[in-house]
Amino acid sequence: MSKTPVIVSLGELMMRLTPPSKLRLRQTRQFDVCHGGAEANVATALSQFGLTSRFVTALPESEIGTQALREIMATGVDTRFISRNNGRMGLYFMEEGSDYRSGCVVYDRDHTAFSQLDPNDVDWDGAFDGADWFHISGITPAISADLAKMAERAVGEAHKRGVHVSIDLNFRERLWQYGAKPIDILPAMVSKANTLMAGRGDCPNCLGLDGDGENGTDEWAASLGAKLAAQFPNLSTIAITIRASTTAQQHDWRAYIQRGSESAFSRAYSLQDVVDRVGTGDAFCAGLIYGLCTGLELEAALNFGAAATSLKHSIVGDFNAVTADEVRSLAEATVFGRLRR
Amino acid sequence: MSKTPVIVSLGELMMRLTPPSKLRLRQTRQFDVCHGGAEANVATALSQFGLTSRFVTALPESEIGTQALREIMATGVDTRFISRNNGRMGLYFMEEGSDYRSGCVVYDRDHTAFSQLDPNDVDWDGAFDGADWFHISGITPAISADLAKMAERAVGEAHKRGVHVSIDLNFRERLWQYGAKPIDILPAMVSKANTLMAGRGDCPNCLGLDGDGENGTDEWAASLGAKLAAQFPNLSTIAITIRASTTAQQHDWRAYIQRGSESAFSRAYSLQDVVDRVGTGDAFCAGLIYGLCTGLELEAALNFGAAATSLKHSIVGDFNAVTADEVRSLAEATVFGRLRR
Amino acid sequence: MSKTPVIVSLGELMMRLTPPSKLRLRQTRQFDVCHGGAEANVATALSQFGLTSRFVTALPESEIGTQALREIMATGVDTRFISRNNGRMGLYFMEEGSDYRSGCVVYDRDHTAFSQLDPNDVDWDGAFDGADWFHISGITPAISADLAKMAERAVGEAHKRGVHVSIDLNFRERLWQYGAKPIDILPAMVSKANTLMAGRGDCPNCLGLDGDGENGTDEWAASLGAKLAAQFPNLSTIAITIRASTTAQQHDWRAYIQRGSESAFSRAYSLQDVVDRVGTGDAFCAGLIYGLCTGLELEAALNFGAAATSLKHSIVGDFNAVTADEVRSLAEATVFGRLRR
Amino acid sequence: MSKTPVIVSLGELMMRLTPPSKLRLRQTRQFDVCHGGAEANVATALSQFGLTSRFVTALPESEIGTQALREIMATGVDTRFISRNNGRMGLYFMEEGSDYRSGCVVYDRDHTAFSQLDPNDVDWDGAFDGADWFHISGITPAISADLAKMAERAVGEAHKRGVHVSIDLNFRERLWQYGAKPIDILPAMVSKANTLMAGRGDCPNCLGLDGDGENGTDEWAASLGAKLAAQFPNLSTIAITIRASTTAQQHDWRAYIQRGSESAFSRAYSLQDVVDRVGTGDAFCAGLIYGLCTGLELEAALNFGAAATSLKHSIVGDFNAVTADEVRSLAEATVFGRLRR
Amino acid sequence: MSKTPVIVSLGELMMRLTPPSKLRLRQTRQFDVCHGGAEANVATALSQFGLTSRFVTALPESEIGTQALREIMATGVDTRFISRNNGRMGLYFMEEGSDYRSGCVVYDRDHTAFSQLDPNDVDWDGAFDGADWFHISGITPAISADLAKMAERAVGEAHKRGVHVSIDLNFRERLWQYGAKPIDILPAMVSKANTLMAGRGDCPNCLGLDGDGENGTDEWAASLGAKLAAQFPNLSTIAITIRASTTAQQHDWRAYIQRGSESAFSRAYSLQDVVDRVGTGDAFCAGLIYGLCTGLELEAALNFGAAATSLKHSIVGDFNAVTADEVRSLAEATVFGRLRR
Amino acid sequence: MSKTPVIVSLGELMMRLTPPSKLRLRQTRQFDVCHGGAEANVATALSQFGLTSRFVTALPESEIGTQALREIMATGVDTRFISRNNGRMGLYFMEEGSDYRSGCVVYDRDHTAFSQLDPNDVDWDGAFDGADWFHISGITPAISADLAKMAERAVGEAHKRGVHVSIDLNFRERLWQYGAKPIDILPAMVSKANTLMAGRGDCPNCLGLDGDGENGTDEWAASLGAKLAAQFPNLSTIAITIRASTTAQQHDWRAYIQRGSESAFSRAYSLQDVVDRVGTGDAFCAGLIYGLCTGLELEAALNFGAAATSLKHSIVGDFNAVTADEVRSLAEATVFGRLRR
Repeated sequence: MSKTPVIVSLGELMMRLTPPSKLRLRQTRQFDVCHGGAEANVATALSQFGLTSRFVTALPESEIGTQALREIMATGVDTRFISRNNGRMGLYFMEEGSDYRSGCVVYDRDHTAFSQLDPNDVDWDGAFDGADWFHISGITPAISADLAKMAERAVGEAHKRGVHVSIDLNFRERLWQYGAKPIDILPAMVSKANTLMAGRGDCPNCLGLDGDGENGTDEWAASLGAKLAAQFPNLSTIAITIRASTTAQQHDWRAYIQRGSESAFSRAYSLQDVVDRVGTGDAFCAGLIYGLCTGLELEAALNFGAAATSLKHSIVGDFNAVTADEVRSLAEATVFGRLRR
Repeated sequence: MSKTPVIVSLGELMMRLTPPSKLRLRQTRQFDVCHGGAEANVATALSQFGLTSRFVTALPESEIGTQALREIMATGVDTRFISRNNGRMGLYFMEEGSDYRSGCVVYDRDHTAFSQLDPNDVDWDGAFDGADWFHISGITPAISADLAKMAERAVGEAHKRGVHVSIDLNFRERLWQYGAKPIDILPAMVSKANTLMAGRGDCPNCLGLDGDGENGTDEWAASLGAKLAAQFPNLSTIAITIRASTTAQQHDWRAYIQRGSESAFSRAYSLQDVVDRVGTGDAFCAGLIYGLCTGLELEAALNFGAAATSLKHSIVGDFNAVTADEVRSLAEATVFGRLRR
Repeated sequence: MSKTPVIVSLGELMMRLTPPSKLRLRQTRQFDVCHGGAEANVATALSQFGLTSRFVTALPESEIGTQALREIMATGVDTRFISRNNGRMGLYFMEEGSDYRSGCVVYDRDHTAFSQLDPNDVDWDGAFDGADWFHISGITPAISADLAKMAERAVGEAHKRGVHVSIDLNFRERLWQYGAKPIDILPAMVSKANTLMAGRGDCPNCLGLDGDGENGTDEWAASLGAKLAAQFPNLSTIAITIRASTTAQQHDWRAYIQRGSESAFSRAYSLQDVVDRVGTGDAFCAGLIYGLCTGLELEAALNFGAAATSLKHSIVGDFNAVTADEVRSLAEATVFGRLRR
Repeated sequence: MSKTPVIVSLGELMMRLTPPSKLRLRQTRQFDVCHGGAEANVATALSQFGLTSRFVTALPESEIGTQALREIMATGVDTRFISRNNGRMGLYFMEEGSDYRSGCVVYDRDHTAFSQLDPNDVDWDGAFDGADWFHISGITPAISADLAKMAERAVGEAHKRGVHVSIDLNFRERLWQYGAKPIDILPAMVSKANTLMAGRGDCPNCLGLDGDGENGTDEWAASLGAKLAAQFPNLSTIAITIRASTTAQQHDWRAYIQRGSESAFSRAYSLQDVVDRVGTGDAFCAGLIYGLCTGLELEAALNFGAAATSLKHSIVGDFNAVTADEVRSLAEATVFGRLRR
Repeated sequence: MSKTPVIVSLGELMMRLTPPSKLRLRQTRQFDVCHGGAEANVATALSQFGLTSRFVTALPESEIGTQALREIMATGVDTRFISRNNGRMGLYFMEEGSDYRSGCVVYDRDHTAFSQLDPNDVDWDGAFDGADWFHISGITPAISADLAKMAERAVGEAHKRGVHVSIDLNFRERLWQYGAKPIDILPAMVSKANTLMAGRGDCPNCLGLDGDGENGTDEWAASLGAKLAAQFPNLSTIAITIRASTTAQQHDWRAYIQRGSESAFSRAYSLQDVVDRVGTGDAFCAGLIYGLCTGLELEAALNFGAAATSLKHSIVGDFNAVTADEVRSLAEATVFGRLRR
Repeated sequence: MSKTPVIVSLGELMMRLTPPSKLRLRQTRQFDVCHGGAEANVATALSQFGLTSRFVTALPESEIGTQALREIMATGVDTRFISRNNGRMGLYFMEEGSDYRSGCVVYDRDHTAFSQLDPNDVDWDGAFDGADWFHISGITPAISADLAKMAERAVGEAHKRGVHVSIDLNFRERLWQYGAKPIDILPAMVSKANTLMAGRGDCPNCLGLDGDGENGTDEWAASLGAKLAAQFPNLSTIAITIRASTTAQQHDWRAYIQRGSESAFSRAYSLQDVVDRVGTGDAFCAGLIYGLCTGLELEAALNFGAAATSLKHSIVGDFNAVTADEVRSLAEATVFGRLRR
């Protein structure tokens, strides 16, 4: 592709409130503020990589909505298709874990501006104008029945325009409270997608299938890929991320990809000092989309995604504040941890 | 009264999020956190004055609810009648004004734990055990129809047990969104009360009557008091606060009180550097209740309330973190601004 | 004008480093960071008012340049004509004054990316595409001989395209170190302008003329306006700002405007708690431009500018983070300092 | 036990001053403030676990004492037996270590309010009303001769009322400056106790005996337990904690317990990122007391204590801000480090 | 004087702990740290004015003492005569007032390193080597009987070497707890001094005499000066500071000086936004000493002192972080509050 | 040596601006400020070890220069030979790395005060009065041609006075922009030195030679030492540091030393949680100089340097804020990570 690829995504942007200095929620009298959300994290990563990234959502008309809007404008995302209404801002409180103490998230995302966005009010033609790729995650349909419809509609709008659709399953147990189960909704969405991203536990919960053998092994990944390809022949590319955590700060991470008969495992990263785990899966999606959109070979695209993911673990906030050059450097590096000066 | 007076109050406790260092909401990436709410502000002031102060509300079961609970426990309030449920935490975002720029509040208090508290689930006998006084404000019925019922029920429960009832009208234009108007609800509540507190603009909006002459003058106050006494003969005491602001930091403040044929104006305070305007009306209510409960003369009780109000303008947060001794000192002071060392 | 007005500006964007909590430079071990510059302040105010605002400058290629770029992108400014090069970031250290201690600025803006921007490398056609107005200040020609040429070129490019040109004289004694004096350069620039903004001491230093009578009086302002109109018949509109400071936090401010035979003084603001004095002149320019571009009457446009200026004194940072609605509210207000809730 | 267990403890509550962001004491110009002390840490952990926890101490009458009181009230501890006097607040300055640089503590706890508390002024009957358990540590008798007497008196008062007594030896070399040695005092106290907690180096210093074989091994722990049981037949339960530190942040931790013929080793935790080592021993005592008081089996109680200890290493401040549910979850967990969302 | 004047001072240096952001002591979980003490404040002001300033004290051997030592070294004070011992660091907690809420100080300065300094261990010859002036305040003898002896000894050592001695009475009601009264000690010290500084209430308390007429008037000041000169003929110069506070932030300040038949009142400063009132009296002493030592005329020296005092009110911390040039500028200024840029 | 050794060093002191809380440069709106520079880091470490340490440089006349001066005065360095001029302050922006994300430095050190210091204006006699040792690094000649001359001149001035000269090669790829290469300049400087310090990659770049075998092995170090000794027979002592980094926080570090036929490897440190990598090489130089100047045996001096280096990795800022006692303790320690209390 010679023109700059145009990627569209749709989802909720939340304000995140995190106690500073590793304090617990019950201890804090301050919050650090950032913003994030699965698809917004992908959108802002892509704009920082230099692609044209358009994000569709709704935000409150209040100054709290303006604050959120400024944060994504700062990353260079195209915000023309973000509407404002009287709903509230989606929030989540984030307590960082440490060592044997797990981090936790307290969601506060009911009745939000995004959940009040009527699919009929979205300018789909404008939003998809010139679009090469559309990305959405399984979080959007998990929030409410209306948003499940919105997600389906968005995939449908992309699909019918011939835009490449990617879906990251992103199973969240604490969401899905409105009655539907992921398996009621996601298989249909995936059947219109071209690229699928999934983490270790996503496929059983969302699609009702799993790999064979010990979860996380090569064999498991390959067999899961094969089953997915068999069940969803529409998928040109399937990517599976494999994380193993020892403590809150120590994670091993790698990913598997499959495209037709081609397949590869990424470089494995052994993370020792995770700064912020949130958004690392989205960082992978963005990295992989970047790689595939800019014409990298499959394994190189996967490794770009893996390096982006690895970097995100060291970045404060949901958004992956790195350049494509930094990702490339890490993907090609053989020595780590040097101070550049 | 020889025993320590027991004051009960009921209302919503919210988390307040304030940008540090006078930043605007749209500029900030941090929030200072405190907690507050009209009746909670009264309750915590009274416990810090040394009285027995019991607060009835509901908080979320989550760690966000625990954070809130700890903040009121820290002030010594009796929290045994605070229940926990699955509702969300009431929030408000506070932008401090400065000079000609008005401060503003963005409320986010729909669907809260408190609004899900069923009046039938409150242990009214326990909550009013040994109670001398019950305080509630006009904010609670402003939030939702359910909470209007809760407010009426609480006043009724106090009334039938012979507990002295005080109501602070506390008109908030941005609340009252659910259909009812204050005048539909507050007159009935006030008709069961013993003490009424009102700010300059409250009576026209909540009770449909106003003083004569120029708003804020002695004549206006006295005539408003007379009309209130005529319309609500159940009221033994009526207090009216009179604020005039020149800029966000410069306010003149005094109050008027009337009990039977007795009446008085408080000392006037000319505040020059308002640190936090929120909760100053509640500080007055708490100060007045303290004065009346501990047997001060009417004018002395009013002046205790006025001094408490004046101090609150200098205190960060909703709660009035002062001792009764400090309030007394100011009420009696003739020299101001000295460093005590 | 039915379409959204398009305003172009050109100048340097600097990083500002301010000690927190009123510490002096020699005391601090932290800096709060914001960004600003005379024309950038105008540009970001206009975008926050809702106009199309395009800013032309150059920033370093480094992450320090990216940081700066994000800050103006966050305000919605059109940044497509901002180039990146190997120059350094312009900086200034800001020490806030208080009471009798004057604030001070330590500039560190030699050899910057902007000063290395070659006028021949600017895409003037693109930058002025659809432009209605061009704004520049007397600070740009004060920095270096090259930037004086850049300023002249920019004014010329606007002029020849029939774009309305405004110049804010903005005399800075600590700049103008490279040899030229303001009077060598600014009269020629002003002679191509349509609107002139000047502070009390600017005209004598920059244009060699002053009003009659006591500086700051009505008579002085009117006579200065008359002389300017006589000397620069090209100017359709002349605005003069009049500030008198008693201490670092207490300033009286008003402005005078003249267009042909029409003239007016703005409402006077008596600021008591100045939070940040930097950028207040730019706030006036932006407010006035907004008013004139959106078709307000002369006095109303002036008062819009005056209210914007007044608000800016309460805002942390160089940029005037206010909406047009907020400015209009203040311009029309008769009561001040109320908390909006 | 069907009623909520009531645990009483007695000791000093200090203000702790810690430089932020890993600065050294000589570098800092800020302190983060929290409060702690061996027995206070146990008391606040137990109240956060949901038990009735009563803490006996004295605090200064000043606002510094009020600050401290609020912090323990916030955790739900019963503070009715805390008196106020004219002594000073006990303080300690805490410098966190990192890697090969050891952390250090500068105590400033002479002449404190607690040290001026006269045992005859304590309402022992009130303090022990309904008490099931009394806990004290070897730190109290280390501070001064008066406090040694206070510690002996408190143990005696508990003993004579048939309250279960636990003592944590807690040897601190930098204390014990007033002349007595631990071995002069602690054996007599231990001889009235029911449960003993000891760290690796405590028994030789405080009781004059040690285990056989290499310190820290299974054999060593068992033989130390046997010797303690032989010398103090009054002890029903003996718990020994075993810590090995590689750097300031990397510690291996496990514990051993013995009750009659029953004994067990806890799960071992390999801590990689210790956030705050202070109070971890107290967290163990509180966890073990909770387990024993609520009727867990010996090994389960030990493992509850071990999990509580492990969590405390990740918590900022002296107090173990965790719930009993969180401790149970960790004690039962097989996978670690997942973000709960 | 052609050589740089050498000023010696002796006193206690304390660590000051101040809650940030105007929080009260009971509310805070952070302290800002600075260091100060009456004579240390004078010493550090003089070194920052460019004079040779030698400070004699004792500090703890701990890292807390090192922290304090670094802070005065940073100002350029000659610290060679500061010894280290096992005493504790003097502390004070400072709560800033605001408006009608008075600030307050909680001292914690018993048993300090300075109070354990034996006068016989001071190298008086070294300390006074080349000295032109010695300054001490009435705070040192207020702390303990030993320090009263130290103060007398120091004055005697200076006196016998012919060094000019200045004493600032500095009455502090909350000190003087050890039995002696100021009037038992200060008259004898003043009788060996050459210059006396006193605030409005100091002379009655410390020397048993007061001016005639209304306190603070011209007449009062002149008559007080006359009485002091009569009673202490040894005094060549007498300076009296006159402060009137309306609120915690609004103070009017001026001073009176008398030398033989010469006398003058300083410029009066009307401070509107006091940032830090602590150390303002010491700032005056340092300014006056600077003026007198560097040969200014009496009134000019007084006005230098007054301008230094005025500036100190705007400076965070005890030390007056200003240059002599800045003081001179203010003393000569006719316009205030301009931003220097 | 019985007298306190006097060490002179010359170089640039910069202000360092670091985002707090691991934020990236593009994300931050705050900077933590400290100061550093290769030779300044050595100088301040030595003064904190208790030696007489004199530092020669130039700083801006502005308050920014004063801020820097205060920071080195606070460490006890002799600053009498630091001059002030109109150049700007050298700055660098520091982005901490984490895990696989490398830290990076953005230098902003052109046109600085130090670079405008004329060697003829330095008082060489004064600066070297009583000097035992002179230290300089290869960074100074890397900045500009003028500073290369300054470095050569300084080495020459020391050399001709018989002062022991040490050079730390300190190769920085991002400097050396003015045309010369290190190999054009450093060999001549080294040929006048007595002690050489070099990191793993320094010798090939600066001196054109390298060790044999795998870089970092014993064999490699010994052969490099032998070649250096052969080429520079003037060198009495050669020290080579060997670092291997796995991630930004995990580094293995040891050093090799050679003096005549004597040689040794230091203890190896396996750093797991690097807090601040900057200045660790300078910490080694200072430690080694301290050891050699105070008469330690060669291996002990090396191990003192190694322990100082290890500690520096845990210290925030460029300066090694540790005492000689702390270094000795670590050098002799067999157990690590204990809290000292």
